[in-house]
Amino acid sequence: MAKCESIGRYISEIYRMGGKFYSKAFNKFNIGSGQYIFLLHLYFNDGINQECISSNLNIDKGTTARALKRLEELQYVERVVDKEDKRAYRVFLTEKAKDIEEEFFFTLSSWNDVLSKDFTEEEKVMAINLLKRMTNNYKNII
Amino acid sequence: MAKCESIGRYISEIYRMGGKFYSKAFNKFNIGSGQYIFLLHLYFNDGINQECISSNLNIDKGTTARALKRLEELQYVERVVDKEDKRAYRVFLTEKAKDIEEEFFFTLSSWNDVLSKDFTEEEKVMAINLLKRMTNNYKNII
Repeated sequence: MAKCESIGRYISEIYRMGGKFYSKAFNKFNIGSGQYIFLLHLYFNDGINQECISSNLNIDKGTTARALKRLEELQYVERVVDKEDKRAYRVFLTEKAKDIEEEFFFTLSSWNDVLSKDFTEEEKVMAINLLKRMTNNYKNII
Repeated sequence: MAKCESIGRYISEIYRMGGKFYSKAFNKFNIGSGQYIFLLHLYFNDGINQECISSNLNIDKGTTARALKRLEELQYVERVVDKEDKRAYRVFLTEKAKDIEEEFFFTLSSWNDVLSKDFTEEEKVMAINLLKRMTNNYKNII
């Protein structure tokens, strides 16, 4: 295999392409590529504690706070002081966020359609399977 | 396929894992995960124009400038004003960078070894092939 022909290199390249694709695709909601991952997490965890978002996504607190602030300015989320812990915030989806949910997921999945455009069903399953095993291989060494 | 079981999701997850893996692995050279990609490019393009690095890697000029400044502080690169264009810099590897080249590439490839730890040779080839086709599928739509 050539020095440059590596799994890691392709993963990085596809990831960066994804950032560009999403930047353009999410533009219609005014959401940048740094924010959609948070909105995605909130669709599955509405009302979650802000620190839990940071921890679940493995993204530092500062970046998480900035992204949520931006989503709040755009009126997709509301941050409410936690009744049980006054130093903490809970983050809720607004009606505006709920209104775009279906289109949001459609946009999100369109990236997969691009990547696997010429794949057979068998190749799609194979790709998922290999990628899943890669993540498990990493988890097994940490 | 489940809503969460997507190629794009795994690509993002593996990419982020790679960042952590490299942060730790490149620590021995004092290089952060934001810098190794530039050093890698320089090993193949010693003496390249700074703007070309930014353009080749598809990383904005500000980020490129910051990463190269850090590599200069660490004495891995030297930036020299371009004789043919006084507003431009050319970037050269130092002896220190050349001394670590072999270990650098070993560290870099160890990530691939982690990801494909339990893959057969056939599966490794299959993974590369599918990932390569994903990048081409994106390039074909832009």
